[in-house]
Amino acid sequence: MALDKLEHADEQMQECIDNCLDAAQVCEWCADACAGEGEEMARCIRLCRDVADIASLHARWMARNSGYHAELGEICADLCEECAEECEQHDHEHCQACAEILPECAESCREMASA
Amino acid sequence: MALDKLEHADEQMQECIDNCLDAAQVCEWCADACAGEGEEMARCIRLCRDVADIASLHARWMARNSGYHAELGEICADLCEECAEECEQHDHEHCQACAEILPECAESCREMASA
Amino acid sequence: MALDKLEHADEQMQECIDNCLDAAQVCEWCADACAGEGEEMARCIRLCRDVADIASLHARWMARNSGYHAELGEICADLCEECAEECEQHDHEHCQACAEILPECAESCREMASA
Amino acid sequence: MALDKLEHADEQMQECIDNCLDAAQVCEWCADACAGEGEEMARCIRLCRDVADIASLHARWMARNSGYHAELGEICADLCEECAEECEQHDHEHCQACAEILPECAESCREMASA
Repeated sequence: MALDKLEHADEQMQECIDNCLDAAQVCEWCADACAGEGEEMARCIRLCRDVADIASLHARWMARNSGYHAELGEICADLCEECAEECEQHDHEHCQACAEILPECAESCREMASA
Repeated sequence: MALDKLEHADEQMQECIDNCLDAAQVCEWCADACAGEGEEMARCIRLCRDVADIASLHARWMARNSGYHAELGEICADLCEECAEECEQHDHEHCQACAEILPECAESCREMASA
Repeated sequence: MALDKLEHADEQMQECIDNCLDAAQVCEWCADACAGEGEEMARCIRLCRDVADIASLHARWMARNSGYHAELGEICADLCEECAEECEQHDHEHCQACAEILPECAESCREMASA
Repeated sequence: MALDKLEHADEQMQECIDNCLDAAQVCEWCADACAGEGEEMARCIRLCRDVADIASLHARWMARNSGYHAELGEICADLCEECAEECEQHDHEHCQACAEILPECAESCREMASA
């Protein structure tokens, strides 16, 4: 059985959780792969590490309906946008995957934060 | 776009990542809800908190193909099994959801750990 | 040998890291102990869990000089203040320890965030 | 006021918590600094990231006296040892700091795990 629905989470929140977990996964992959690709990837590694941390925590705080998830969501959105801008400049498959996935996460975090 | 596939992750690993993220979500919800339901839920809160932590980290370590993800997966499997046994004794919707979701996570963590 | 000093961390940042790590420890203890003390501690458990998460992450982001540590520090300060107000209403040793330790963490996070 | 003592933590556990938090800090610093120093530091980045994650979580689980802290401590000790061996081969200040701090963390995690 896959997790169907958290009791408190409407469709918008569940979508934001899913987007954050996708963002965290792709950034874990990208940060790790970039470590083997030389010092010009330093900024990419750093931003991906921050996104992986905050998107994971944001998903967990939404899952438990923490009183501060919106505040965390704002930072998550900012970081996803900055990281996507960095990643789209690199041709690696992992960087291109980041550049495609992170803007959607940023958008749903903004919507959740202002809901 | 949803995350399609991590480059290094075969179907088995991606399924284990998904199961761990479902386990973390349902345990965040259950630990939080149990906090408002009295001291007989103390063991449930404690086990759910541990599962939420380790399943989240296990998913992240698989996403970046860490050299120690299998070791973490063993602990994750043990905790999921112990938590499911506790949760199935309680009628709350969140406890029943835990009891249904965690055994599947335990099983895929065991398989990944021995792969 | 104990860790002496992170290269980039001046005295103010190292003090803030130490305060965040103390806050995380005392809130882990308090959330766990409150789980066994009945439903009137629900708000305390929830706030302590949030503080433990964010203070831990804030310390890690300062330790690696992340570009977004100040933004995280603002949320950490808000949560420490709200949690200290809740904890000071309870006589348990762990709640009183929280109420004593968290305001200092809040203050140093505010100072770091505006530095 | 600094955190004096967790109620349940004897001297040995508190020392292990402190060692884990030092290990996490130095590894956050080292992973971040290595990102700017070229692809020969890839293995160092990866091991430091894993140590930072597991040492942080191990400290938190000891602080709340989780039933599984010893199991996590075994992995933490293994990772600290492997990371220290890697770091001692590099002359960077951060790598040398890792090589000095991590063995002490490994040793106290082993002692806690077998206590």
